[in-house]
Amino acid sequence: MMHHPVPRAVVLLSGGLDSTTVLAHALAEGFSCNCLSFRYGQRQEIELRRAADLCRKMGAENHLVLNLDLAAIGGSALTTDMPVPKDRGREEMEAGIPVTYVPGRNIIFLAHALAWAEVLGAADIFLGINAVDYSGYPDCRPEFLQAFARMANLGTRAGSEGTPFTLHAPLMHMNKRQIIELGTRLGVNYADTHSCYDPVGELACGRCDACRLRLKGFAEAGLPDPAPYVAEVKR
Amino acid sequence: MMHHPVPRAVVLLSGGLDSTTVLAHALAEGFSCNCLSFRYGQRQEIELRRAADLCRKMGAENHLVLNLDLAAIGGSALTTDMPVPKDRGREEMEAGIPVTYVPGRNIIFLAHALAWAEVLGAADIFLGINAVDYSGYPDCRPEFLQAFARMANLGTRAGSEGTPFTLHAPLMHMNKRQIIELGTRLGVNYADTHSCYDPVGELACGRCDACRLRLKGFAEAGLPDPAPYVAEVKR
Repeated sequence: MMHHPVPRAVVLLSGGLDSTTVLAHALAEGFSCNCLSFRYGQRQEIELRRAADLCRKMGAENHLVLNLDLAAIGGSALTTDMPVPKDRGREEMEAGIPVTYVPGRNIIFLAHALAWAEVLGAADIFLGINAVDYSGYPDCRPEFLQAFARMANLGTRAGSEGTPFTLHAPLMHMNKRQIIELGTRLGVNYADTHSCYDPVGELACGRCDACRLRLKGFAEAGLPDPAPYVAEVKR
Repeated sequence: MMHHPVPRAVVLLSGGLDSTTVLAHALAEGFSCNCLSFRYGQRQEIELRRAADLCRKMGAENHLVLNLDLAAIGGSALTTDMPVPKDRGREEMEAGIPVTYVPGRNIIFLAHALAWAEVLGAADIFLGINAVDYSGYPDCRPEFLQAFARMANLGTRAGSEGTPFTLHAPLMHMNKRQIIELGTRLGVNYADTHSCYDPVGELACGRCDACRLRLKGFAEAGLPDPAPYVAEVKR
């Protein structure tokens, strides 16, 4: 394995609020950040353009966009033409695993991050998963992450013979307000981030679960959300 | 989850000797087999054509070929222009993890198999990994497979709320001779399989690690290898 004067990390970056905050955190921790995004058949590619802009503006070492065939596997409103739920309250969102759950998505994302980390000689992988807002997603829980790290260290050359991999999920126990406060302290410009599952052109819908959680977080933090929304959304 | 009169399984099928034997085994166990192959930037696509033929001839329920961007990640002789080692003896093969190791490959393959299994309502995943011939590959060890199953059952809806996933690696403790004997009993036509890392047209080279292990297995089983090789290979 190569050794680098500045330790390298792989950061899973969707271009949304959470992963962008994680990138700012990893940079502040002194890592040289190699950001990984996926074109996986999502309805929109705005988030990929945002991710590329964020990497450039924030000073990432690298940005790699990998193509994935998740749409061929199916099973989610995010990669098929199932309708995205709108205007749901907290209780509805928490009632079960939503249709926007993509089977195996975080496992597939992490598997690629791991492969790239092994090639780069990076022992640290950062991701924005969160057990507070995404309590319905089995692949956002700390037990899952621990089990993934164990599997990764048994199943790779780097993990089993070199430095073990560490998975960092700094947002795991934060709510959206705390995430926004952290990112704001770290200088994140949230105008550059995109969270909406179902945007209208470049504008966030304001009504899907992702928009509602985000708007609620900004409201609780007492900050305006600088991202562009369709005109009728009340903030 | 849907219930099927015949239980469904996902079978990782490369079109090689091992995974084809596993498909025959899963069919003999009574599973309706959904075979998964990958176009991952490998040097040749013969194995994908063989996999499609095998699915049709052997009676698989489905064959899905997913595109993966492993070549963009790099790091292996199988997906870059690094030379594939030739004419190596057993000792050399066992001296360390070979350059044909693809970082994270089995983890990425299994992650997709898991996602598809969840969508199909399949609780069983079959794969041809083997700790005897591939002792140098960390992602071919039983401890790795157990850790993957644990992670899978924590990180998916199906595994955590429904029937837990079972990963079947029936060849794990077999040598090549035993695998060939099993497949022969199950009626596998090994003429339809392709193992070579570096074929010449449709012909196996006979000199890469995969060819050498295969030819040695047939010799030990006292059977001819019916696959086509370049003319000068002695069998």
